[in-house]
Amino acid sequence: MKILEERILKDGYVLGKDILKVDRFLNHQVDVALLNEIGKAFYAYFKDHGINKILTIEASGIAIAAITAQYFDNVPVVFAKKFDSVNADPDSYETNVYSFTKNRDYSVRVSKKFIHQGDRVLILDDFLAQGRAAAGLIDLVRQGGGEVHGVGIVIEKSFQDGKTYVSSLGVDVHSLARIRAFIDGTPIFEEV
Amino acid sequence: MKILEERILKDGYVLGKDILKVDRFLNHQVDVALLNEIGKAFYAYFKDHGINKILTIEASGIAIAAITAQYFDNVPVVFAKKFDSVNADPDSYETNVYSFTKNRDYSVRVSKKFIHQGDRVLILDDFLAQGRAAAGLIDLVRQGGGEVHGVGIVIEKSFQDGKTYVSSLGVDVHSLARIRAFIDGTPIFEEV
Repeated sequence: MKILEERILKDGYVLGKDILKVDRFLNHQVDVALLNEIGKAFYAYFKDHGINKILTIEASGIAIAAITAQYFDNVPVVFAKKFDSVNADPDSYETNVYSFTKNRDYSVRVSKKFIHQGDRVLILDDFLAQGRAAAGLIDLVRQGGGEVHGVGIVIEKSFQDGKTYVSSLGVDVHSLARIRAFIDGTPIFEEV
Repeated sequence: MKILEERILKDGYVLGKDILKVDRFLNHQVDVALLNEIGKAFYAYFKDHGINKILTIEASGIAIAAITAQYFDNVPVVFAKKFDSVNADPDSYETNVYSFTKNRDYSVRVSKKFIHQGDRVLILDDFLAQGRAAAGLIDLVRQGGGEVHGVGIVIEKSFQDGKTYVSSLGVDVHSLARIRAFIDGTPIFEEV
């Protein structure tokens, strides 16, 4: 997605070897006009799946999911919540996600009220690296008897194995920008 | 706001004496069509203030702010982040907020990159009760030299003193639904 790649080059910046910060337009300050273009792109790709729900994870996924839902006839958006410790809650589906950034597990939950048998769910998130968060969301949907009809990612680090991992769960992953390397602090995108 | 009050009566539920749960449509599962009506209502009230930025707080405020920003000519949305402990970060403005729900302080931060001298900021949040979170956001804007041009709240518990407290800081508060009491588990709205 050309305007997204241009925006990453203009306003993103790299910390260390491979941490891309996009807090100027995606996950601290949010550019809603850009999110609308992102929403249109997700709709163009997933529109034939009869999506009836969008699932994301707090906090960075929420704005992406809410704006995108407008293109899917305002389907409900559900955001899963993160907890520091696993703490069984009989009213929630829960899964464990390992964070490579923080080097520890955290728990992700969604109320059983919001995932149902027969749901056709699109999962959205800002980043895909190792794919552990996306896999956790897939697990939550499947615990509730729903079907995952795709994972939409704004920025994929394609030099990590997230896409392979999520695909191995039988889910199609579509990323709008795919970074294959950082060279001298500059993201290098996959050819499309 | 009539459709909001009707939705609270239909899908909200009360826990204990005065905890209103709106997780079916506002802060876990999100109804994006309703958020658009909420955004229009905030725009109708605050449109003459030359708002150039919307500030909210993770996680429940993000969808409200992102959808509402569309009515304000896609002004940038910034969401402040919550931290468990106060931990001075030279790149962030930081304030301390007391949570009556959790009976302890937490820290709220926003990067200095996103609040500037001359900013005309609209603050949005889902609930107003004691007003401590809204006051914290006002403090962050003022630390950065910005002007707060209003606080927009989806649901106010007007039997608590949040509006009085925020007004005492010189900021206009506009709430779309104002609950003056819970009687036998049913919210009773202020007359408009």
